Amino acid sequence: MRKLVFAIIIFSFIAMAKEPVDASLIAEKFVRTALREQKAYQWLRELTSIGGRLAGSENSAKAVRWAKEKMEQLGFDRVYLQPVEVPRWERGNVEKAVIISPENLKGRELSIAALGGSVGTPEEGITAEVIEVKNFEEFKEKAPQVRGKIVFFNVPMDQGEINTFKAYGEAVRYRWAGAMEGAKAGAKAVIIRSITTRYDNVPHTGMMGYDTKIRKIPAVSIGLKDADFLSNALKKYPHLKITLKLNCRQLPPSRSYNVIGEIRGSQHPEEVIVVGGHLDSWDKGEGAHDDGAGVVQSIEAVELFKRIGIRPERTLRVVLFMNEEYGLSGAKAYGEYVSRASEKHIAAIESDRGGFTPRGFTVKAEDPVFKEIKSWLPVLQKCRIDWIRKGGGGADISRIKAKALIGYFPDDQRYFDFHHSANDVFEAVNPRELELGSAAIATLLYLISCQGL
Amino acid sequence: MRKLVFAIIIFSFIAMAKEPVDASLIAEKFVRTALREQKAYQWLRELTSIGGRLAGSENSAKAVRWAKEKMEQLGFDRVYLQPVEVPRWERGNVEKAVIISPENLKGRELSIAALGGSVGTPEEGITAEVIEVKNFEEFKEKAPQVRGKIVFFNVPMDQGEINTFKAYGEAVRYRWAGAMEGAKAGAKAVIIRSITTRYDNVPHTGMMGYDTKIRKIPAVSIGLKDADFLSNALKKYPHLKITLKLNCRQLPPSRSYNVIGEIRGSQHPEEVIVVGGHLDSWDKGEGAHDDGAGVVQSIEAVELFKRIGIRPERTLRVVLFMNEEYGLSGAKAYGEYVSRASEKHIAAIESDRGGFTPRGFTVKAEDPVFKEIKSWLPVLQKCRIDWIRKGGGGADISRIKAKALIGYFPDDQRYFDFHHSANDVFEAVNPRELELGSAAIATLLYLISCQGL
Repeated sequence: MRKLVFAIIIFSFIAMAKEPVDASLIAEKFVRTALREQKAYQWLRELTSIGGRLAGSENSAKAVRWAKEKMEQLGFDRVYLQPVEVPRWERGNVEKAVIISPENLKGRELSIAALGGSVGTPEEGITAEVIEVKNFEEFKEKAPQVRGKIVFFNVPMDQGEINTFKAYGEAVRYRWAGAMEGAKAGAKAVIIRSITTRYDNVPHTGMMGYDTKIRKIPAVSIGLKDADFLSNALKKYPHLKITLKLNCRQLPPSRSYNVIGEIRGSQHPEEVIVVGGHLDSWDKGEGAHDDGAGVVQSIEAVELFKRIGIRPERTLRVVLFMNEEYGLSGAKAYGEYVSRASEKHIAAIESDRGGFTPRGFTVKAEDPVFKEIKSWLPVLQKCRIDWIRKGGGGADISRIKAKALIGYFPDDQRYFDFHHSANDVFEAVNPRELELGSAAIATLLYLISCQGL
Repeated sequence: MRKLVFAIIIFSFIAMAKEPVDASLIAEKFVRTALREQKAYQWLRELTSIGGRLAGSENSAKAVRWAKEKMEQLGFDRVYLQPVEVPRWERGNVEKAVIISPENLKGRELSIAALGGSVGTPEEGITAEVIEVKNFEEFKEKAPQVRGKIVFFNVPMDQGEINTFKAYGEAVRYRWAGAMEGAKAGAKAVIIRSITTRYDNVPHTGMMGYDTKIRKIPAVSIGLKDADFLSNALKKYPHLKITLKLNCRQLPPSRSYNVIGEIRGSQHPEEVIVVGGHLDSWDKGEGAHDDGAGVVQSIEAVELFKRIGIRPERTLRVVLFMNEEYGLSGAKAYGEYVSRASEKHIAAIESDRGGFTPRGFTVKAEDPVFKEIKSWLPVLQKCRIDWIRKGGGGADISRIKAKALIGYFPDDQRYFDFHHSANDVFEAVNPRELELGSAAIATLLYLISCQGL
C-alpha cells in the first residue's frame, strides 16, 4: 500500500512537473524568437505609418485593410470582418485659441486641441474672458461668475501617485464632465488642463461627455506649459480674453469593422481564447502605444505559435476592436456576438496599456480559476511577468462572457507621457519592451490553450 | 501559563506588525515626495550639463565640485573628499576611419569611437585591409591571414537574450580582448561591433585591455549600421582598405576624489550604511544613465530623510565613486578605507544600472541576512520593487566588507540603447522612473537603518 501511495505521489509529481517544464521552454522560445526577430515592431511601423486612426476615418479603413491582409499573409486559418456601426467625429482644420486682451499679450496663441466629441464654435469664434478653477468645489463657489465666460479647469494630474492609471482616473472626470458643468453655469466653452505625466506643451485629447438636456459648449485641452502660462497671466490680468475657434463636428455614423483572425485548436476547436487590442486611435499622433502596441502584440502572440511550430489545442482568436476610444462600438458588437455564439469563450486577454516592459496580468475570474492562472507565474516569469493579481481585464473585452478576463499590465510610468497626444508615435516605442509583451501574452495563451480553464 | 504564552504571541505580533506598517507609510511618503518634487531629476539636469566626466578630466573635477556643493547645500552632517589617484586616458580630437579602396567607396567614413585605453595611431594613420571575423573561433582559423590587417570583430550582442546584462557580458569579451588577440596574430588594429540593443549608427565605447607583453594596437568600436555596411562591402570587396586615425593617448595619473556625504545616525552613529554610484562617466554623451542616475538617486535617497523629517537611527553615507569606468580607483580606495576604519559598515547599496523603472534588489549576504532583507518585500513593493534575489551588489561596493552588498536593479531592457555612447544624455531619462529608484533605495535605507542587520 505504501509503495502504491508512493508511486502515485511520484507519478502525480511527474505529471504535474511535466507541464510547467515544457511550458517554460516554450516561454523561453517565445521570448527569444520575439526579441530576435522583432516582427511586432516591424508591423507597428507599418500600422503607425497610416497615422491617427479615428473610428470612421479614411485612416481607420486603411488600418482595417492592413490588419486583414496582415493576418491573411501570416496564414491564419480564418480572417474575417465583423461589421460595426461607429459614431463619427472629425477634428476639422481650424483649432485655435488666441489671447486678444490685455494688449501686451494680444496675439499670443495657446497650444490646444479639441476634445473628442466637442462641438465647434461659430466661424467667428467664441470670444470671452477666461475664469480659472482648480477643482469642482472651486467651480461651484465661482459658479455665479462663470456665465458668459470660458472656464479653465486647471486641475493637474497627481504626479505623486505611483499608479498612473489611478491618477488619470481622478483627473479625467474634468475632461469628461467639464463641458456639462460649465454649460449648466452658463459658460461659453471650457479649457481642460491636459492629463499627462510629461511636462511639455503638447495637448492631450480624449473623449468628453455631453448631457442631451443641456446646451453643448466646445471643450479643448491645453498643453501643460501653456496651462501654467495662462494661469500666471490670469493672476496679473483677471479680465484676460481669448478667442477660441474650432470647426470640429459630429458626422453621421458610418460602417466600420472589427478585424478577426484565428488559428483553430487541434483538440478543442470549439473553445475560444480571445486576444485583442483596439485598431482605432485618437487622431493626434499615430496611436503607437494606444493601441497600436496591443494590436501588433495580439497578432504576434498568436502568430508566434506558427513561427515556432506549435498548434494550440484550443482556438486562438485575435479580435482587433474598432472604436474603443469613442464609444466602445466594437466591444459591444463582439460582446453581442459572444452572447449568441455556439462556441464557448473560455478566456479573453486585452493589451491596451501601451507597449512598455512587462510587469503583470490582472485577472477577473472566480477564485479557483484565478488560483489556477496564478499558479502559472513561474512560467510567466520567463517573460518578465512579476505578478498576477485580481483586477479588470480591460474595456474592449468587458462584454465577453468567459471564465477569465485578463488584462496585460506593462509598466505604467511612461504611458501618460504619450497617451492621446501627438507624442504617441512609433519612435516612442522600444522594440524589446514591445516584444516582451508579445511573448508574455503568447505564453499565457499557450498555458490556457493546453490546460483549459 | 497559556495566557502568558498567548499574551507573548499577541505582543510579538503587534511588535512585528508595527514596523512594517510604519515602514509602508514611510515608503509611500518617499514615493509621493520623490515623484512630486523630482529633485533627483533636477540634479541630474545640472550634473549632465557638465558633459561627459572621464576620470581625471576637467569635467570630472567639475562634477566633484558640483557633488560636494550639492550635499553641503542640502545640509548633510558631513561632506568630504577622499583623494584617489586615477589613471588618465584622453580621446583627443582625431577619430576617423575612412575607406580608401575600392575606388567607388573611397572617402566613405565609418562611424567609430576609440575604445577606452586605446593607443593612438601614427599621425598619418594606419592604412590596411580589413578582415572580418564573427567570433574568436573564426579568428583562430583566420589567424594566418590577419598579419598586417585590421581585424573587424563583427560579433553581435545576442538580441534574443532577455537579460541584457548577460548578453552584454558575453559580447564584451571581444571589446576587452580583441586588441590583445589581434596583436598576437600581427594585426595592425581592431574594430569591434558596438555592444548595444539599439539599431542605430552610434558607436559605444568602454574599457579595453592590453597585455603588457604584447604590442599595443589601436582599438575602436563601430556603429551598428556601419558595421553592417562594412560587412556587406567586404563580401563584395574582400580587399577593402581603410585608413584609421586616432590621437587618443594615455596621460600621467592624476589626483581626483570620491565625494562623500553623510547624515549621522541618531541611535547607532558608528554603524554605517553606504549608498552610492559613480561620478565619472565615459566621455561620449553625458553619463546620464551611467551613472548620473545612480549619483542623484544616492544623494536623494539620503536627502529624502531630511525632506520628510526623519533622522535615521544608523549613519547613512553617500559615496560617489571616482573612476568606475577606467579601473575602479575609487572603489579600491574606499574599500581600503573600510578595512582600517573603526566604524562598522553594515550594508552597502549601489545604483549603477541606469535610471529605469524599479524591478528589484540583488543581495549578496549570508542566508539569515538575506532572509531578513527579503522579508521586507511587502514594504518595498510600495516603490514598485517586485523581487529581492541573491546576486552581486555592484563593482563599486564590491570591496566593502559589510553584512550585505545590495544592487538596485531597475528594468534592463533599454539600458544598452544608451550605455557608453552619445545616446546617454539627460533626455534619455524619464523623471518618474528615476524618482521611483530614489524612493526604493530610500525605503531600503530606512528599513536597514531602523532594524540593523
